[in-house]
Amino acid sequence: MTIKIIVTGGTFDKEYNPLTGQLSFNGTHVSEMLRLGRSRLHAHIVTVMMMDSLSMNDADRKKILKECQKTKEDKILITHGTDTMTETAKLLGHHIKDKTIILTGAMVPYAFGSSDGLFNLGSALAFLQTLPRGVYISMNGKYYHWDNVRKNKEIGLFEEIK
Amino acid sequence: MTIKIIVTGGTFDKEYNPLTGQLSFNGTHVSEMLRLGRSRLHAHIVTVMMMDSLSMNDADRKKILKECQKTKEDKILITHGTDTMTETAKLLGHHIKDKTIILTGAMVPYAFGSSDGLFNLGSALAFLQTLPRGVYISMNGKYYHWDNVRKNKEIGLFEEIK
Amino acid sequence: MTIKIIVTGGTFDKEYNPLTGQLSFNGTHVSEMLRLGRSRLHAHIVTVMMMDSLSMNDADRKKILKECQKTKEDKILITHGTDTMTETAKLLGHHIKDKTIILTGAMVPYAFGSSDGLFNLGSALAFLQTLPRGVYISMNGKYYHWDNVRKNKEIGLFEEIK
Amino acid sequence: MTIKIIVTGGTFDKEYNPLTGQLSFNGTHVSEMLRLGRSRLHAHIVTVMMMDSLSMNDADRKKILKECQKTKEDKILITHGTDTMTETAKLLGHHIKDKTIILTGAMVPYAFGSSDGLFNLGSALAFLQTLPRGVYISMNGKYYHWDNVRKNKEIGLFEEIK
Repeated sequence: MTIKIIVTGGTFDKEYNPLTGQLSFNGTHVSEMLRLGRSRLHAHIVTVMMMDSLSMNDADRKKILKECQKTKEDKILITHGTDTMTETAKLLGHHIKDKTIILTGAMVPYAFGSSDGLFNLGSALAFLQTLPRGVYISMNGKYYHWDNVRKNKEIGLFEEIK
Repeated sequence: MTIKIIVTGGTFDKEYNPLTGQLSFNGTHVSEMLRLGRSRLHAHIVTVMMMDSLSMNDADRKKILKECQKTKEDKILITHGTDTMTETAKLLGHHIKDKTIILTGAMVPYAFGSSDGLFNLGSALAFLQTLPRGVYISMNGKYYHWDNVRKNKEIGLFEEIK
Repeated sequence: MTIKIIVTGGTFDKEYNPLTGQLSFNGTHVSEMLRLGRSRLHAHIVTVMMMDSLSMNDADRKKILKECQKTKEDKILITHGTDTMTETAKLLGHHIKDKTIILTGAMVPYAFGSSDGLFNLGSALAFLQTLPRGVYISMNGKYYHWDNVRKNKEIGLFEEIK
Repeated sequence: MTIKIIVTGGTFDKEYNPLTGQLSFNGTHVSEMLRLGRSRLHAHIVTVMMMDSLSMNDADRKKILKECQKTKEDKILITHGTDTMTETAKLLGHHIKDKTIILTGAMVPYAFGSSDGLFNLGSALAFLQTLPRGVYISMNGKYYHWDNVRKNKEIGLFEEIK
């Protein structure tokens, strides 16, 4: 079994730039995280964009959709900013029925030590191997169906709508 | 759904003692790790022992078995040293059929920064929610049935026997 | 010997706010850093402000000057943002001649794992104990006289002017 | 000004070996630490041994002494295990009068996240630049003359004898 990992950016991959004092992107940490986790999964990693999910527009989401559609593997993990993760999940949920797709991300950048990123990556990869076909979000140790999840921005946690 | 987490020690929870220069136990890190992972799972955590799994004897394993048998929750995560994790899994696999039990651990102590522990905890909790009843080991991003797994000590990875 | 530590904010003490995705202040890390460094120095720590040094105005700098003037200890460490650290040093250098004052800070927040903060704090405290009266900046493992230092913003390092 | 850094091992440079579960040496972290601290000091780093200071014998200490004697630089930093750091300091103190030599180390390995190593390295390098000729130990944010220091092993701190 080979899985596909599609990197789109998000807090997960943000780094601190000492010269500007700003957070910015500088390549994904997914390979390093898999090595740290001593993962034995066969994974193809592709970076389709590196952006804050608040900046994503329809064209960006369609690009992610197309990447999922053309992917041969039927198990796909997408790393994504949390702010509009549910929107991308909705687009994928409406169009893709024959693959298992999990979106995950982080509330604190992986590079910052006290991040939830490694925990989330571990959970998401496990759900990817065990959940039936469909589109899901994996955050906070749980999984959510794409049509029944929202981000509660007050507390920074995901929850079911009903 | 409530899950039970049974702590038994292992590399996972080892710490560096600056006064002796040795590795030792000083309470479990599981709660802290769940907080870092921003977990929303309802978990009862109980520490039944804190030991290196190389030091475990039959009586210790029976204690773990009894804890699993008397536990009301039917989803149980056990943190355990990797060296004899497969032995404990075998004992549990022979005696418990009506619960989902996942054993996990770490090759590097959680307290040491570059640990696989948080990744493993994330994976194990996800498998716990999705796998059918049975006893499994979750390491290296994968899950293994209790009767088809060994630790390859040369490379520090788990693998299927056949 | 007792030293005084005056906290003013800066990158040194910035944290990542998971709810906003922004960097912000949330109390100083100096006590924690001294504990980590196993420091045996007697230090009085006072927080006079928590701000980005780019936002400091004349009134803010005068507040720092007054705090230094009224301080009984004649060895003072000031944690400060790097962007205008030299300006504050100049004001102090012109007005205070009878104390040893060291300004230090960090290019990467202490909370972010890969920070220069702990190294800088160690250096600054050592210079504080050994340099004659005067006002200095301690960064990059070196010390600079207040009237002969600039921050090279292209490379993020401090250097002598002449 | 160029300084010399002589690496001898000690807790400072110990790492966790996941295959054996033991602490062991695997190259020094000093260069990486200087990079993290954004040091601008010119330093020649030489590793003369990598050992636990409890295992050092007279021949080992003489090797360190010879390395100090033949070194052209008159400012030398030595990283050393804390358990017999005072013994090596004594040997050097008796034989070398024309250089500034600072011994430092760590109570927790640098690789383990919560280490005092980076703080100690920062302090030691600052003392090296400012103290007069002589042999000193720099630990806990302070410096100690070679003939007036002991390690208090109960609490893991250095202190003056009288």
